[in-house]
Amino acid sequence: MKLKVEPLNPAAFAPFGEVISTATARDEYKINLGTTTRFHDISRVDVGDEGGIPIISIFRGTPRPMPIEIKMMERHPLGSQAFVPLSGQKFLIVVAEGSDTPALEDLRAFISDGTQGVTYAKNVWHHPLLALEPESDFLIVDRSGPGNNLNEIDLPMVDDTPVTLDWPQT
Amino acid sequence: MKLKVEPLNPAAFAPFGEVISTATARDEYKINLGTTTRFHDISRVDVGDEGGIPIISIFRGTPRPMPIEIKMMERHPLGSQAFVPLSGQKFLIVVAEGSDTPALEDLRAFISDGTQGVTYAKNVWHHPLLALEPESDFLIVDRSGPGNNLNEIDLPMVDDTPVTLDWPQT
Repeated sequence: MKLKVEPLNPAAFAPFGEVISTATARDEYKINLGTTTRFHDISRVDVGDEGGIPIISIFRGTPRPMPIEIKMMERHPLGSQAFVPLSGQKFLIVVAEGSDTPALEDLRAFISDGTQGVTYAKNVWHHPLLALEPESDFLIVDRSGPGNNLNEIDLPMVDDTPVTLDWPQT
Repeated sequence: MKLKVEPLNPAAFAPFGEVISTATARDEYKINLGTTTRFHDISRVDVGDEGGIPIISIFRGTPRPMPIEIKMMERHPLGSQAFVPLSGQKFLIVVAEGSDTPALEDLRAFISDGTQGVTYAKNVWHHPLLALEPESDFLIVDRSGPGNNLNEIDLPMVDDTPVTLDWPQT
């Protein structure tokens, strides 16, 4: 099965979390004597109420072999997780609606235009980072704290073949 | 008075907050089948305990006129504030030790190499964003919530002249 990759846009991504971009700010205003525009409150960092704290990390990603196979998904039951590209690089996003065992028909794939990041909402199935550059950095804002904040699940295959991503660059 | 700008480094910046870079991670390990390095827990997001939540915003900055005058400072008494450049751009940082009325001799100035962001700790005096590019974006992680989270103070002048920044580019 080939999964079609869509351009990332806030409406399509809404069931899975939030797009992080100047276009998705809840408010926008000038500060600092007019030298700065604040695109305010673009995305919320959800660390739940079980003693977690919000932390900032960096993921340095490298690409997967082509064609990109989607064989598993993960989710974070205790908090959200934000990914923001630090050098304007595009990246791929694969998510699924939030049942306990996502079916192949629940999968959606998106590509960021490089100015867009994403926040995966708490408990939303997503594929681990799918970077496209030889090496590129992403700022991560997620939760640190007690409890198990990672579930992983293997996806089914069709005729012993994993799902692959179908987008113009392949 | 001219304030000398130092290269940003974690030890010198420690009294004011945290440098955000792969070099300042509290831990570092491979994830995602070895395709990603996680530079883990670089900086904490402090939203205090007065009902605030952590939010992600974007600041689009433009430069100040040269020479850059440092006439005031601000601080956030209820939470930390992180700035991370989104296109590898350098920027200037001016901070002061945490008394209620920072003296001119308390001022320190730094320049990020463009791979470095900063988190200003709660209640640390800092100058508003000092961008250097014609227009550039910074990811901001700070606090939203009830209460007054902004103090501003005018700095003294010397012979009616404000402090200016002294660094090679001026």
